[in-house]
Amino acid sequence: MTSRPSFIQQWHEAAERNNSALCVGLDPEPSRFPAPWTNDPLRLFDFCAAIVDATADLVCAYKPQIAYFAALGAEGQLEQLIAHIRKAAPSVPVILDAKRGDIGATAQQYAREAFERYDADALTLSPYMGFDSVEPYLHYPERGLFLLCRTSNPGGGDLQTLALASARAGGSAHLGDELLFERVARLAAFDWNRHGQNGLVAGATNPADIERIRAVAPDVPLLIPGIGAQGGDLAATVRAARHSFLINASRSVLYASNGRDFADAARREARRLRDAINVEAHAAAHPHPTP
Amino acid sequence: MTSRPSFIQQWHEAAERNNSALCVGLDPEPSRFPAPWTNDPLRLFDFCAAIVDATADLVCAYKPQIAYFAALGAEGQLEQLIAHIRKAAPSVPVILDAKRGDIGATAQQYAREAFERYDADALTLSPYMGFDSVEPYLHYPERGLFLLCRTSNPGGGDLQTLALASARAGGSAHLGDELLFERVARLAAFDWNRHGQNGLVAGATNPADIERIRAVAPDVPLLIPGIGAQGGDLAATVRAARHSFLINASRSVLYASNGRDFADAARREARRLRDAINVEAHAAAHPHPTP
Repeated sequence: MTSRPSFIQQWHEAAERNNSALCVGLDPEPSRFPAPWTNDPLRLFDFCAAIVDATADLVCAYKPQIAYFAALGAEGQLEQLIAHIRKAAPSVPVILDAKRGDIGATAQQYAREAFERYDADALTLSPYMGFDSVEPYLHYPERGLFLLCRTSNPGGGDLQTLALASARAGGSAHLGDELLFERVARLAAFDWNRHGQNGLVAGATNPADIERIRAVAPDVPLLIPGIGAQGGDLAATVRAARHSFLINASRSVLYASNGRDFADAARREARRLRDAINVEAHAAAHPHPTP
Repeated sequence: MTSRPSFIQQWHEAAERNNSALCVGLDPEPSRFPAPWTNDPLRLFDFCAAIVDATADLVCAYKPQIAYFAALGAEGQLEQLIAHIRKAAPSVPVILDAKRGDIGATAQQYAREAFERYDADALTLSPYMGFDSVEPYLHYPERGLFLLCRTSNPGGGDLQTLALASARAGGSAHLGDELLFERVARLAAFDWNRHGQNGLVAGATNPADIERIRAVAPDVPLLIPGIGAQGGDLAATVRAARHSFLINASRSVLYASNGRDFADAARREARRLRDAINVEAHAAAHPHPTP
């Protein structure tokens, strides 16, 4: 019986081979497809497969977003796409972005959906329901799990940045208070990380919060959206994340052009981003001495 | 153009007609199906449809859990099931249990999945990503939204019951601190409740926490799992919830028998639960004078 390479192994291998920390998110919106595919729900596969073919040597992972397929009843095209990635980009791992969150028997079903039906190498999860919403996925120790921690959207702070009351008797609210997302980071990185397979989702729109995450979870992989269309600061993000990160870009790559040249334009944008990330990573690792 | 009756209207109508606050959760596990359907993934529809036929006059809602269908690639059977509920139990609303949580364009796709593809009357959502993870669903003001608030599972307390630091300068952690789930209740019931369509998920395993929810959100509908297989206290739950609630039972109804009589057994258990809820609701509304 051959054992499956873990998500971590595949990711590291692809990152090294392609010299890349870029993850391309596959969020196919038919209204943004080039003619003659515009608005054609049967072209999700064709569109995404063209993006994969154009970027397979530039990325460390692909992240298909299941909602775009589910909205259109196109689960079959998602299965087809993942099979295509296996052929066109062997050993580039697939992170299924589904943000599942449920417990017990139901979480087992979601794990089965992600890891058996779609055969994804990693999955995004919501932490709100606590440990037993994560536990069923730990039965697939070779897969990666990325728990939502500090998300890149404006409302990400509605709950995630709330300060927790100190457990110390008489402790008062102050700057050193633990924030909710820091608790999530600590739980995911340690208490819930039985097999070392856990990572965190941390948005590039809040580099200071990525620093706070690194203070409590120095080594877990970070999946970082928010560069590109959402306008996160790449240099600050890379400095804060330090190492062991995947920078995700979706729309800025997929829709770099809406013409016939969309795949070439996606390749150019993916290469530009990959190289920009590498420049920032190099600068962060070799800071200029300040005079 | 006829306007669609709202979730609230349908729920109230079904609750009154069937004299019921019971919601039956449709979580089909083929391993628990009676012979000869045992382990047959093509029988999700047949099994659930038989449950619906046996309970249509006893419930105020049905709650299919999408994970059981998605794990098996059986989305078509879920579509078929919802269409069957429309015929066999007209005006009994369908709550799609999907616990979706994503933002912006992606949340729009999930809303489309739930409300257009499956035509559900209501949907469960995770609050962790904040307001912009709820906003896209508000564009369907006639549908119900149940946000996870205080869930019935053991790990529900890992995050949900964390005490928030008081905003008062020098405020110290004390019993009166707001808990995370209370903040979620307040946001969902007020700040995020533009069209009055929001409800909360609150588990019967923690009736004291349902009281706390009612203190901040006195009137929003509560979807209450945890009675039945999870062992929540029905009397305490009904007293705490007061009014405007749906008590969900899934496994205790679906698998009341694993023999040929499963549908009859489901009907007996659904009737027993419906009546038990009504007895407790009556007792809570007309407490005996204590001597």
